Amino acid sequence: MQLLEQKICKEGKVFEGDVLKVDSFLNHQIDVGFLCRLGEELHRLFADCGVNKILTIEASGIGIACITAQFFHCPVLFAKKSKTVNIAGNLWTSRVHSYTHNTDHDVVVSKSYLGAGDRVLIIDDFLANGSALEALIDLCRQAGAEVVGAGIAIEKVYQGGGEMIRRKGVRVESLARIASMDTEKGIRFC
Amino acid sequence: MQLLEQKICKEGKVFEGDVLKVDSFLNHQIDVGFLCRLGEELHRLFADCGVNKILTIEASGIGIACITAQFFHCPVLFAKKSKTVNIAGNLWTSRVHSYTHNTDHDVVVSKSYLGAGDRVLIIDDFLANGSALEALIDLCRQAGAEVVGAGIAIEKVYQGGGEMIRRKGVRVESLARIASMDTEKGIRFC
Repeated sequence: MQLLEQKICKEGKVFEGDVLKVDSFLNHQIDVGFLCRLGEELHRLFADCGVNKILTIEASGIGIACITAQFFHCPVLFAKKSKTVNIAGNLWTSRVHSYTHNTDHDVVVSKSYLGAGDRVLIIDDFLANGSALEALIDLCRQAGAEVVGAGIAIEKVYQGGGEMIRRKGVRVESLARIASMDTEKGIRFC
Repeated sequence: MQLLEQKICKEGKVFEGDVLKVDSFLNHQIDVGFLCRLGEELHRLFADCGVNKILTIEASGIGIACITAQFFHCPVLFAKKSKTVNIAGNLWTSRVHSYTHNTDHDVVVSKSYLGAGDRVLIIDDFLANGSALEALIDLCRQAGAEVVGAGIAIEKVYQGGGEMIRRKGVRVESLARIASMDTEKGIRFC
């Protein structure tokens, strides 16, 4: 999506350690009008999939998920990052490995809000190694919900997470696909 | 706001320990269409205040903030909860005390996105003892930004946070004001 690529080129900043900062419009400050355009495009891509729920993960996925959900006229469910063990048994739980911090944490959603019969579009701001997306897909699998696909704002294609998820048969649509990124040479899109 | 009170009565659940669960529509699953009605009301209340930025705090404030921002045609900025010390000096930082967990944590926003000249409406899902709201006001004060007021979905009036903030001269508008809450007697609104 050219509009998003242009925005990334204009406002994004590349830092050492494979960091792309887009916090002027996507994941700290949120340009709500701009996100509407992304939501509209995600709706165009998944309009005929019978989506009845959008699933995302706190915190930075919530903004784009809520704006996008308006086009689908469906609720958003956001998975919470949890450090506590699920004793009550009322949660779907999956493990995410953070390669950045080399730690594991659980993500959880209430069983009340995700179940068989749900047709889920997963939305997130970034897709890199795919561990967060894999966990969200796993939550849907446990719940017996159907994943119609994943709609991502920015995919770091070179990290391989998107390829790994697509190989599993999940449709992944990313609005901007970064082929390579460098503090000096800048960003190259696919 | 009668619409919100009715929704709380219908879907909210009161638990021991002063817990009101409204996670079917507000802070886990998000009923985006319903939040639009709340955003519209918050816009009616603050329409003439020259708001150019909405400030909230991750994670559960982000949904209502983004939906509300559409009515104001302004960006959202969400404060992040931080455990790491701000060495770089590029963040406004304030301390929040959690009475629930008896712990302190910092909330931060980038200095790039909050400064003099900003006219800020603070939005959050809950107001109880007011410690989070106080920290958000403090961030604005540090930045030299003007707080035009705070728009809250649900205020637990009996916890005194709203009264404490209003006494400091900040306009606080809460769409549902809970006078008392009990697992047996249920919820009484002001």
